Amino acid sequence: MGIPVSGFSKKSKHDKIKWLAEAYFNDDATAIQTLKKYWNSDDRLQEMHDEFTENAISNYYLPFSVAPNFQINDTLYALPMVIEESSVVAAASNAAKFWMNRGGFKAEVISTVKTGQVHIDYFGNPAVLFSFFSEVKEKLIGSISEIQKNMKARGGGLIEIELKDETSKLMGYYELHCTFETLDAMGANFINSCLEEIADTFEAEANGYQAFETEGRGPKVVLSILSNYVPECLVKAWVSCELDHFSTEDIDGKEFADNFVRAVEMAKVEIRRAVTHNKGIMNGIDAVVLATGNDFRAVEAGVHAYASRNGNYTSLTDARIDEDTFTFSIEVPLALGTVGGLTSLHPLVKFALQLLRKPSASELMMIAAVAGLAQNFAAIRSLVTTGIQQGHMKMHLMNILNQMEATSEEKQKAIRHFTKNTVSHSAAVEFIEKLRN
Amino acid sequence: MGIPVSGFSKKSKHDKIKWLAEAYFNDDATAIQTLKKYWNSDDRLQEMHDEFTENAISNYYLPFSVAPNFQINDTLYALPMVIEESSVVAAASNAAKFWMNRGGFKAEVISTVKTGQVHIDYFGNPAVLFSFFSEVKEKLIGSISEIQKNMKARGGGLIEIELKDETSKLMGYYELHCTFETLDAMGANFINSCLEEIADTFEAEANGYQAFETEGRGPKVVLSILSNYVPECLVKAWVSCELDHFSTEDIDGKEFADNFVRAVEMAKVEIRRAVTHNKGIMNGIDAVVLATGNDFRAVEAGVHAYASRNGNYTSLTDARIDEDTFTFSIEVPLALGTVGGLTSLHPLVKFALQLLRKPSASELMMIAAVAGLAQNFAAIRSLVTTGIQQGHMKMHLMNILNQMEATSEEKQKAIRHFTKNTVSHSAAVEFIEKLRN
Repeated sequence: MGIPVSGFSKKSKHDKIKWLAEAYFNDDATAIQTLKKYWNSDDRLQEMHDEFTENAISNYYLPFSVAPNFQINDTLYALPMVIEESSVVAAASNAAKFWMNRGGFKAEVISTVKTGQVHIDYFGNPAVLFSFFSEVKEKLIGSISEIQKNMKARGGGLIEIELKDETSKLMGYYELHCTFETLDAMGANFINSCLEEIADTFEAEANGYQAFETEGRGPKVVLSILSNYVPECLVKAWVSCELDHFSTEDIDGKEFADNFVRAVEMAKVEIRRAVTHNKGIMNGIDAVVLATGNDFRAVEAGVHAYASRNGNYTSLTDARIDEDTFTFSIEVPLALGTVGGLTSLHPLVKFALQLLRKPSASELMMIAAVAGLAQNFAAIRSLVTTGIQQGHMKMHLMNILNQMEATSEEKQKAIRHFTKNTVSHSAAVEFIEKLRN
Repeated sequence: MGIPVSGFSKKSKHDKIKWLAEAYFNDDATAIQTLKKYWNSDDRLQEMHDEFTENAISNYYLPFSVAPNFQINDTLYALPMVIEESSVVAAASNAAKFWMNRGGFKAEVISTVKTGQVHIDYFGNPAVLFSFFSEVKEKLIGSISEIQKNMKARGGGLIEIELKDETSKLMGYYELHCTFETLDAMGANFINSCLEEIADTFEAEANGYQAFETEGRGPKVVLSILSNYVPECLVKAWVSCELDHFSTEDIDGKEFADNFVRAVEMAKVEIRRAVTHNKGIMNGIDAVVLATGNDFRAVEAGVHAYASRNGNYTSLTDARIDEDTFTFSIEVPLALGTVGGLTSLHPLVKFALQLLRKPSASELMMIAAVAGLAQNFAAIRSLVTTGIQQGHMKMHLMNILNQMEATSEEKQKAIRHFTKNTVSHSAAVEFIEKLRN
């Protein structure tokens, strides 16, 4: 079932769509029209977007939103957020406003080092390999002098190469463990180019090395690549206030804070809670990561692996009460860039970075960490008070109404009705159906 | 530094942008024009996209691409992929074509159960709590009969509620652990609505329960929410072929397969390799997740936590050689939906689901797992042969050229030049600058 295709990537966009229409849509004009509806009317702009990746046939819209009132250290930001999930931007904005009036968010970058490895097989005498490594180390570093010339000039580049014995994990496994400072670049291409050059030099030098020949076996490079595990590229953010700031008509501030801390304690010890808790944090972080043209898969992988670093997957945030003071904090690894990649290419990424006052990578790390902390604060506050469905479904109401192709008048009536009534998918459908009968 | 704003979410889109222009862009018309350039010319369509989330001011484009020739079980698919990273779609397409001629991908769903928890504080006698639970269990289930009516009618709904003693992890911590079958819906709203109702009923019943009053302390619900940790919503995919299928002019098939297996072994034991390895898998999975309107943060959190389930973060894929046969497989938890949420709302999501022949959630789990496996195959194949930079930079060349605002003629010349020369950012810049002098 289905038709194979040859040379698809070589076809023009027009011909790709034509082929899809025949092979999968029975030449249904409506389906094809959908793709075209999303093309930009500016041909040159569209062409650039088409060239971001292979086989692009249309533009997938994610809402580009703004959450204002984020006070971070001594600056007020409006955060660009790209996310499709209703209620995330609203939650971020609410948390921002709450904390703006209570001293704002504080943040600091703990470290910015990234790493990459040349993964090596070697089954000979370890002492020979270590001795070889110390002999060629300077040549390895020298081999990337051209690649890292610009980065060095700006104060970054390779920091160190170490040979690591990983044979306790896997027989014959060694690594050239390289540490880098990539400044405002995320640095994936830079690091990978350095590593591949180092690997080539390492193999070339090993080929003529007498002691390996004597032993009858030298090292072999298996692969070289940067690591998205970035526990040395770490940022911290926190908020703090007196307990009575949480007091409302419904709840005493101390009781609220106790419930909040208890909720975080549960996320520290129980994986089923921790994963969802951290997922909520990533709603905030990824929205900023996407808006600023960074790679959310890299960030996600690094963050969740970090959450499991002690052998038990756990919460990325911490909450505590010291006497009358509540503190809520996050510590999270974020390898981000504000130059290179899509940052100077995607017009909305440029816009987002301008909105953020052209941040350095370190500043962006702090902003993204704050977005995560704010999101988590809003989520836990809802969870320990009203539950999340009330707010979430209120935001989702518009989607249900649009799905039913509700008119403006129907929408107005529904919004009025559901300010006092609980939203559910079936209740919304029933309400509109009743209006129409 | 910066200006706070009140009632931002209540402003019209026009007024939001006006405020941003004043507060952050010094009324720079170009920046604002950028936002508007991305609006759809169809006002009604644009309005719907604006209503996906709060404070939306424009549409963020991600390329909507297609990777054809995916043979999965007995069906040939063209996969919709939404991803900004150059080379991912090309890599997926290459892997698809390679395996189409070698038996295709196989996949099966292992289980589809999701869970949610009511997290409870209780510091009394455990026996009293367990006895209370068994008395009220039927009432708890009864309390959601209205909510789950439709889901039940289709064969899904709540499967079971258990009371779990988590006090070994945290003093006084208990859970109502609920298992659900949500069929073709991802089910987050459904599960959360059920849990909040169960929690209300649980508290109401506990309030009047004699034995708690006698003890002087009853249970208290801290929060209720679904879990994004979904190890019981699991799918498996694999490929297999004879070793000599890998033979090329450059390498013997057996040697290639040995290197490949060794690379996977390294990703199993070393976290810095494993995280990047799995990140590559998620390039494929997330691209399908996004295209089909699913929530990639939920998927990412569940997948990476699963990778850490044995206490050491490890590879999601496995490779082995049995005599002359190579097998490469993935096992991954994926809670996806093909109804509800954005699936019937976002026109390109509808298109993507139609392209995938309107799959069930289980079918989509298999398709997404295959996309991840294909991506990982392509990545490892590059890593253990040419390295990844060659292919990656070739794909990235267009982005660099666009950044330099290269003309069509300059692009053609650059493409010709770099078929034979190594692409790097500086080499591309130099080449174009030379042309222009």
